Amino acid sequence: MKKTKNLPNILLILTDQHRYDSVGINGNNICKTPNLDNLAREGVRFEQAYTPCALCTPARASIFTGRYPHNHGLWNNCDMFQYAKPELPDSEVLFNQILKKDKNYNCGYVGKWHIGTKRGPSFYGFEGTDFPGYGYAPKHKDYQDYLKSKGLKSPYEDKNIKNKLFGLGGKFLIGGTIPGPAEATVPSYLAQRSSEMIKKYSRDYNKKNKPFFITCSFWGPHEPYLVPEELMSIINPEDIPEWGNFRDKFINKPEAHKKFAAEFWKLNLGWKKWRKIVALYWAHVYLVDMQIGRILKTLDECGLKENTQVVFTTDHGDMVGAHAGIFDKGPFMYEETYRIPMIMRWPGRIKEGQVSDKLVSLLDLAPTFLAIAGIKSKTTEKMDGKNLLPLVTSKKTKWRDSVVAESHGHHALLSQRMIRWNKYKYVFSPYTTDELYDLKKDPYELTNLVQNKKYRNLIRNMKKKLSLWMNETKDPIRASSNIYLS
Amino acid sequence: MKKTKNLPNILLILTDQHRYDSVGINGNNICKTPNLDNLAREGVRFEQAYTPCALCTPARASIFTGRYPHNHGLWNNCDMFQYAKPELPDSEVLFNQILKKDKNYNCGYVGKWHIGTKRGPSFYGFEGTDFPGYGYAPKHKDYQDYLKSKGLKSPYEDKNIKNKLFGLGGKFLIGGTIPGPAEATVPSYLAQRSSEMIKKYSRDYNKKNKPFFITCSFWGPHEPYLVPEELMSIINPEDIPEWGNFRDKFINKPEAHKKFAAEFWKLNLGWKKWRKIVALYWAHVYLVDMQIGRILKTLDECGLKENTQVVFTTDHGDMVGAHAGIFDKGPFMYEETYRIPMIMRWPGRIKEGQVSDKLVSLLDLAPTFLAIAGIKSKTTEKMDGKNLLPLVTSKKTKWRDSVVAESHGHHALLSQRMIRWNKYKYVFSPYTTDELYDLKKDPYELTNLVQNKKYRNLIRNMKKKLSLWMNETKDPIRASSNIYLS
Repeated sequence: MKKTKNLPNILLILTDQHRYDSVGINGNNICKTPNLDNLAREGVRFEQAYTPCALCTPARASIFTGRYPHNHGLWNNCDMFQYAKPELPDSEVLFNQILKKDKNYNCGYVGKWHIGTKRGPSFYGFEGTDFPGYGYAPKHKDYQDYLKSKGLKSPYEDKNIKNKLFGLGGKFLIGGTIPGPAEATVPSYLAQRSSEMIKKYSRDYNKKNKPFFITCSFWGPHEPYLVPEELMSIINPEDIPEWGNFRDKFINKPEAHKKFAAEFWKLNLGWKKWRKIVALYWAHVYLVDMQIGRILKTLDECGLKENTQVVFTTDHGDMVGAHAGIFDKGPFMYEETYRIPMIMRWPGRIKEGQVSDKLVSLLDLAPTFLAIAGIKSKTTEKMDGKNLLPLVTSKKTKWRDSVVAESHGHHALLSQRMIRWNKYKYVFSPYTTDELYDLKKDPYELTNLVQNKKYRNLIRNMKKKLSLWMNETKDPIRASSNIYLS
Repeated sequence: MKKTKNLPNILLILTDQHRYDSVGINGNNICKTPNLDNLAREGVRFEQAYTPCALCTPARASIFTGRYPHNHGLWNNCDMFQYAKPELPDSEVLFNQILKKDKNYNCGYVGKWHIGTKRGPSFYGFEGTDFPGYGYAPKHKDYQDYLKSKGLKSPYEDKNIKNKLFGLGGKFLIGGTIPGPAEATVPSYLAQRSSEMIKKYSRDYNKKNKPFFITCSFWGPHEPYLVPEELMSIINPEDIPEWGNFRDKFINKPEAHKKFAAEFWKLNLGWKKWRKIVALYWAHVYLVDMQIGRILKTLDECGLKENTQVVFTTDHGDMVGAHAGIFDKGPFMYEETYRIPMIMRWPGRIKEGQVSDKLVSLLDLAPTFLAIAGIKSKTTEKMDGKNLLPLVTSKKTKWRDSVVAESHGHHALLSQRMIRWNKYKYVFSPYTTDELYDLKKDPYELTNLVQNKKYRNLIRNMKKKLSLWMNETKDPIRASSNIYLS
């Protein structure tokens, strides 16, 4: 491997609906992610990274614009909800468009997109295969072509799925096992296409000093958790301890939480059933981790490890039975859905083996990527995030002391804002109960302290911070919220 | 007055934020509305009319399109809330556009519009003066011209307003008294312009058989309740009995109600203060009623009473201290904001002195107006409302047995739907507590019966009806709501 003065390549690996605690090195010895663990050991992992909104479309659009959902405009899933905008406004700029225009980056995109219903990655200057909307890979021609080229059969035919689990009163497939081999799965197909793209772009990089930015975006571990039978042996459900908040009684909490668990998903399962679902989820994580390993191996084999910044993260987390059996994400701002795994590796530039406890956000990625390409544009000024590089390359960097996320509801409308500061989380809900949790004493967010008089000053300060944030970022509900918050 | 075969004229008189119970003939002997009472005696008044959404923009757009807010697209106030659309989608058609195009109606608009931020009545083919957005008349040139022509001075200068009352912790003017005469007020100016328009169009009507449709739209009695001092003598606040729900403790009710009263408006007033506000509100109603009388007198003087259908109604109601001091409208669906006054007069066609207890909606106006002009167009088929004429001209008419309204929040987001059937009101709130009230036993909506097992079957039926409505009208939250409702 020879030193080069090329601009660095960027490889962004995204998963979907991946909890912070569902990465081995983040403190989980049942959920196995050897490749992510290794990536973290070679770089920095963030212990307090948050999504700006625990929904696919808003979070993904925030990654690529560096802007809060209320600023980029896609504040709800683009395809589920006729109130929401179907596409990003034309005024929005994605950071890859600047990489391409200003620094001649090759830009490639593989896998799940979900930033718009009709406009896919190609609309925004990416090479690769478009999956419009949420995207459903099993029926897509490119996946079928992949199977054919390998002489494999799709394991996703309904008749092949065993051990099925359903939610929504039997209407919604949560997960199950599928026939092997893992090579026939969608994650494996995505790893193959990502590797092909790395190889292709590496030629331009080596011959023409033309750097690349590639996103490899997995649909997993988002439900349905469909995992090859052969992988299920890595986890014994009986080993999985009950979630610390599985017996949440929702005392002094917003009504939506209990109602969402009981009346929406209608699962009503005991822990013995839930741990089987968690096992499927974690096996799904493992399947994806295997593929991430293959992609990183290709990068290595192409001699690109040193001058490629690799970032692994996700759009948001997943409840998977936490808080008395809540599934998926919804009208709440718990750690399970808002705290996310984030790992960054850049040999030589980012010291290996670092752990950062600073409050960071998906919004910080776009400014970081532009900064490492040496770009300071007007678009960067419009971004709500901050370049993470100084934070992970110098100990003296001043950093924000709080981070904010927003929620506008999922299947229906509900305004909520969450501010994390110090060890506390305050959730402001103009139309339901506010929440305050001490995440150190109460990591499972069981005790809502908002009515506790001892915290009156603290709450006043957090309200003030939130109010300031609303004004600074031009939150659309700031005028009325400032009244509640004052 | 001679018989004519002309198409009928239509005069739509709109007030803003006018409670059902704040019209004398609807059973109020303190709030005086002699002109509306007389109009009702000469036609039909509806005892169970509802707005499809208790917010200005959605309700007004529903009046003119005949469609639910979730269908016409303006589901929140167009100018307050950056999530909401600023204008109606281009695909929407207003009924007056059809009256003009198909039947050559003169169409005139006077006063408050609020269906869009930039597009005023003139964009949709009306003659008259545009007040974009919410519209603020006191500073408008046309009002200033009116004052000049009469040798009057504006009573709205801040220094002239006495007995001021503020909400939002002192930030928001709720009402006060202004100098006389009433002739100098905005409602009087609107009556003048409406009368001028009636006179002008009456010439076309008499000479060319060209019918007219005129809307006279008052900003009052919406706050600020600014009333000439000279009118205050008609109401003695001490005569006003406490609202039947002024001591609501919000037991088993959605959290938003109590919070909105206590933390948003921050009025915290006893009844002795509130009754002064109610007195201002009702004096404001009286001021508007006086002007309605002048407009109807002009119609009469022009010899147009017989062949003009007059409709009086409003966009929605007002809390004015109901339910423990809630002000304005907000995240709740109480009768005070959803039940509205509606009166219809058409001498010779609609029998006088009728009272209808049928469940009707603002959505029914557009199809009614098109029907009386003999128009059956494709646009009518797209309308969610129904022609009211058969209901008030024949006793055998089959009519709907339930009516639905929707709420998406006001200053922030919250999805709610309300269905009225028989003597019951059921409010469905996916993200907060549902409500059921027996309006006969509990007209003040104090007792939420939703947890009462005796009503389990009733609730199941009302949920079924609501679910059906959601599917039929393509409610954007129907997919997820059907799960809660099943």
